[in-house]
Amino acid sequence: MNTIPVGVLGASGYAGRELCALIARHPRLSLAFATANEQRGQRVRLGGTDVAFIAPDDAPLGDAVLLFSALPHGTSLTWVTAARAAGARVVDLSSDLRPGHGAGHGAIASWAAVPYGMPELGARTRAAIRAADIVANPGCYPTAILLALAPLAVRGLIARGAAIVANAASGVSGAGNSPKRELLFAEVAGDYRAYGVGNTHRHLHEMTATLAGLGADADIVFTPHLLPVARGILATIAVPLATSLDDPLAIYREAFAGEPFVEIEPTQPALADVVRRNTVRLSATMLAGTRTPTLLVTSAIDNLVKGAAGQALQNANLMLGLDETLGLPA
Amino acid sequence: MNTIPVGVLGASGYAGRELCALIARHPRLSLAFATANEQRGQRVRLGGTDVAFIAPDDAPLGDAVLLFSALPHGTSLTWVTAARAAGARVVDLSSDLRPGHGAGHGAIASWAAVPYGMPELGARTRAAIRAADIVANPGCYPTAILLALAPLAVRGLIARGAAIVANAASGVSGAGNSPKRELLFAEVAGDYRAYGVGNTHRHLHEMTATLAGLGADADIVFTPHLLPVARGILATIAVPLATSLDDPLAIYREAFAGEPFVEIEPTQPALADVVRRNTVRLSATMLAGTRTPTLLVTSAIDNLVKGAAGQALQNANLMLGLDETLGLPA
Amino acid sequence: MNTIPVGVLGASGYAGRELCALIARHPRLSLAFATANEQRGQRVRLGGTDVAFIAPDDAPLGDAVLLFSALPHGTSLTWVTAARAAGARVVDLSSDLRPGHGAGHGAIASWAAVPYGMPELGARTRAAIRAADIVANPGCYPTAILLALAPLAVRGLIARGAAIVANAASGVSGAGNSPKRELLFAEVAGDYRAYGVGNTHRHLHEMTATLAGLGADADIVFTPHLLPVARGILATIAVPLATSLDDPLAIYREAFAGEPFVEIEPTQPALADVVRRNTVRLSATMLAGTRTPTLLVTSAIDNLVKGAAGQALQNANLMLGLDETLGLPA
Amino acid sequence: MNTIPVGVLGASGYAGRELCALIARHPRLSLAFATANEQRGQRVRLGGTDVAFIAPDDAPLGDAVLLFSALPHGTSLTWVTAARAAGARVVDLSSDLRPGHGAGHGAIASWAAVPYGMPELGARTRAAIRAADIVANPGCYPTAILLALAPLAVRGLIARGAAIVANAASGVSGAGNSPKRELLFAEVAGDYRAYGVGNTHRHLHEMTATLAGLGADADIVFTPHLLPVARGILATIAVPLATSLDDPLAIYREAFAGEPFVEIEPTQPALADVVRRNTVRLSATMLAGTRTPTLLVTSAIDNLVKGAAGQALQNANLMLGLDETLGLPA
Repeated sequence: MNTIPVGVLGASGYAGRELCALIARHPRLSLAFATANEQRGQRVRLGGTDVAFIAPDDAPLGDAVLLFSALPHGTSLTWVTAARAAGARVVDLSSDLRPGHGAGHGAIASWAAVPYGMPELGARTRAAIRAADIVANPGCYPTAILLALAPLAVRGLIARGAAIVANAASGVSGAGNSPKRELLFAEVAGDYRAYGVGNTHRHLHEMTATLAGLGADADIVFTPHLLPVARGILATIAVPLATSLDDPLAIYREAFAGEPFVEIEPTQPALADVVRRNTVRLSATMLAGTRTPTLLVTSAIDNLVKGAAGQALQNANLMLGLDETLGLPA
Repeated sequence: MNTIPVGVLGASGYAGRELCALIARHPRLSLAFATANEQRGQRVRLGGTDVAFIAPDDAPLGDAVLLFSALPHGTSLTWVTAARAAGARVVDLSSDLRPGHGAGHGAIASWAAVPYGMPELGARTRAAIRAADIVANPGCYPTAILLALAPLAVRGLIARGAAIVANAASGVSGAGNSPKRELLFAEVAGDYRAYGVGNTHRHLHEMTATLAGLGADADIVFTPHLLPVARGILATIAVPLATSLDDPLAIYREAFAGEPFVEIEPTQPALADVVRRNTVRLSATMLAGTRTPTLLVTSAIDNLVKGAAGQALQNANLMLGLDETLGLPA
Repeated sequence: MNTIPVGVLGASGYAGRELCALIARHPRLSLAFATANEQRGQRVRLGGTDVAFIAPDDAPLGDAVLLFSALPHGTSLTWVTAARAAGARVVDLSSDLRPGHGAGHGAIASWAAVPYGMPELGARTRAAIRAADIVANPGCYPTAILLALAPLAVRGLIARGAAIVANAASGVSGAGNSPKRELLFAEVAGDYRAYGVGNTHRHLHEMTATLAGLGADADIVFTPHLLPVARGILATIAVPLATSLDDPLAIYREAFAGEPFVEIEPTQPALADVVRRNTVRLSATMLAGTRTPTLLVTSAIDNLVKGAAGQALQNANLMLGLDETLGLPA
Repeated sequence: MNTIPVGVLGASGYAGRELCALIARHPRLSLAFATANEQRGQRVRLGGTDVAFIAPDDAPLGDAVLLFSALPHGTSLTWVTAARAAGARVVDLSSDLRPGHGAGHGAIASWAAVPYGMPELGARTRAAIRAADIVANPGCYPTAILLALAPLAVRGLIARGAAIVANAASGVSGAGNSPKRELLFAEVAGDYRAYGVGNTHRHLHEMTATLAGLGADADIVFTPHLLPVARGILATIAVPLATSLDDPLAIYREAFAGEPFVEIEPTQPALADVVRRNTVRLSATMLAGTRTPTLLVTSAIDNLVKGAAGQALQNANLMLGLDETLGLPA
């Protein structure tokens, strides 16, 4: 079988490297090029093969049928536009074109035609991804949290006007691999802290906009934390419900029936269950002893796989007409 | 100056060892004995001195002016009773005599005379501790969470009937040092998970009972997590308020003015700020964009110091008429 | 294509679990059964499938064409004998039948026919493995150290009568998953120590016997260390040479030409290079400023893959006439 | 009692911060100023007090009776000279004036009068430190390794012309807190590697020069490693002896009798035994089964305390006529 050439823009970050590694092991894709501005000229072993980083300006955009942009927010949109001009379809891992972000409005003519690439939101989303020229790949925190909330939102189970309290903790790879003192091993080991406190994290709007689109009328109180692990996100979400649920897991099982990358378990999901996999693992428990019926949902993903590169590849598989699971560690 | 002989029951666990180490470095206390049933006969270096563990039945209870019981819940009460019969005053680190726990009701005649040993709750609590023969030392999670909520509760700021969502994450020393497979390094490293989900953790009642005693009428949604660090607890608490606050830190500064072991900071508290110290570090931020005014409070302690052995020693200092801060790392 | 049924004895340890996971993903093998005495009846997710542990006495040994024994030393030999009686070929991961260990002498009639399963030792070893009914799978430390020394030994480069100083550090999974206090996260995190000091580690004889068999007349000073990581071994070996070498890497490249699981690099090997791979990564540097010409060789493997389960599967592939690399992460 | 004003140059690195924290808790010293070029103007909480970093050019050198220079190698000498001109005595934590380093020869008139600040080398060293205007504080690796070798060297026990193989592993704080990609948590966690391989580490000359000065005629093969821990060094040293020793620990006990910061134990020293203490912990074992009698010595220190700031303070105590142990955690 022929392979399909794809390119990676912004390949030297953790998500970009993970993408290159997944592409290297993918049975139908081949890596046409990988750009990395600062690290141009370097060769790095990823996914069992040597990848040579080139300067973005040297990238033969038109050689790729599909491009992944793992460029920083703001920068990405320029390159998405250039890639489209060169004829390539794009999965954009930045937030530039995600719901709740205004950046792309002017630049992309058919904004409405940029679906949010979370296939598990349902058949309509999947169809939109398949047909799209550009897909906005979800953020890592939104992936963990929205997959936990979507089944409740679409069923109208979330109490109107309530505040969903979503705490989440992420491994430090989520903060990127640019050298910063506060990310040094000797600073992070043994430590743990909240950040972006007060609903100030830039992922919040992506979540509230998507949740509203799913029919829920609720606030989100989102507090991310920095975990002393390399990979993984766990979200712990208290959801005020319109009514108590006898069997919350049944709702999740129904919502995600047949989904290849969703696991529903009565036991608590842990990072160890999902690391290096394109899988979200969910559990849900009705709380005892609260006046408002409240559901406690927990959700674990690998921030670099299902939260970034893996989901991007899942979207690319759909766009290219391939089996959605191809080349993805389940 | 003469030293005051004290004893430690259940000295081989993490809290017991921490207590022995703190006593060894305390300028006015001397360790009369330390019991450890399974590890009897062992000598362990703690706080720069060799401590010999003896069997509980060999402990000369009457030799100690004050006893610390770091025995397991259930077992502790029996020994507290024996210690009282031998004339020693007691700081009980177990939950047996804490608010919301029924265990001690029958056994201890003057139940009401067992104060909850959290001196920062105010002058009346401090006076009760000074006068008490037995003090119930708070649990680690309740220490982090109640110190964050008390200033709001006593001022009537918490919305009536609301659900306070308290997420907390603890280092694994909180789970004790009995060998269990799930606590092995190779299991915990790189992992993170919730436990006691659904308001099932045994510390919950201690928190709800104390909070009610402080005048708040609110539910608590409490979800603890296991962190891949040895020490420390961080609690992240979303508190629905009766009204929005312009300067939440000012309330905390007023509430804890003069407290030697409380730090209020606009920056987020981290485990690294409090590890090996008897200090709680707090921050509080009004949330943007929620319909119910909501305060996000974060609270960090060392679970073995302010959350156990340090607070026990703080209580003992008060009971013995010593400076409250003596021998405690601030 | 048909699958070949294989069994795993002692499947609940870290090596046994790794084996089950590798077999689950192997394109030609199927797991007929997995035994675990203490954990019988449990179902564990390994390699993307649920594995049910059965009691050893319930294992239908004859159903498997080949058996892996990951049983403890001493116990293993009994089951190897039983497996042979039932007609199955065996890869024994215990030390019972390795060079330098006397345990198996009496029990196995044709002792000499039990090759040491390190295919990279050369064509004769590989042929012996292919033909064998039983293969003794090397230990983790010996794998890292002997692959570093073999090219020197067979070329007569090691100084006669000298002492090779082999320091090695292993992740804690090497100590097994039986609950022990000294392996708890809170004990291991932030710590590092030597053990088996004074040439007392049970892997030493396997190394000295094999090295002598390769023609070297040298002592080994072997000091293992416990690393605060889950997986991986790094060996740092100072080898007194008969003569100085201009290009030591060239010797290794020649020795291991065409080997699918050996990487020779001028840069220092790190655990991160080899974890979750069946690869040994080697480097070698002549030392400056020593009177005896001395080569510093460094060698990294994943103790559970190339140091245990992966190498066992590599041997099984050879015994079963399959491609040696099948199902193995390179 | 009056306090003695001291200054710290280069206070923002890990060693400089540790020094500030130790000085803050020292009963007789007060911190006159702390310089940090890049972080000038910042306030940092160290040792329970707020320390304000000032620019080096603003430092009132003459206000300090004694200065600690924790400046980088090369830069330090300039400031040592300036401090001397201003009348202050100096403990230099850089390598500029250590044995085997030529940097200081020209600049410091009385080079021979700069003792190597390792008080445990004996009475003559201690006397020289007391009298010195400048002391060269030893490196972290040399401290761990030379304290292990000195008792053997001065007794003529090391085989002449032999190669001592010294492997050592250090926590990442040894690499400083300048932001570098290879020191990020996500790079270091779970990893382990050698560096400075081939006797290329800049600490080697300090060790060989000092060892020769103690009378040994031996080579050193020194290989440092980077450990995934924040603090601590463990050295594992194979020493070829002139003759076998019946009781090696007795030699160490005799050599270090009365030393307040040396512990000799038959059990293996671990980082956990020495972290946050100014203590070196040593063990020594004769090797079985080697033709050359070989002693395996293990040595553990905290690289930031006994390996840097603590030892510097120990030297300052001596220079200032104070109790050598004052303010130092034993």
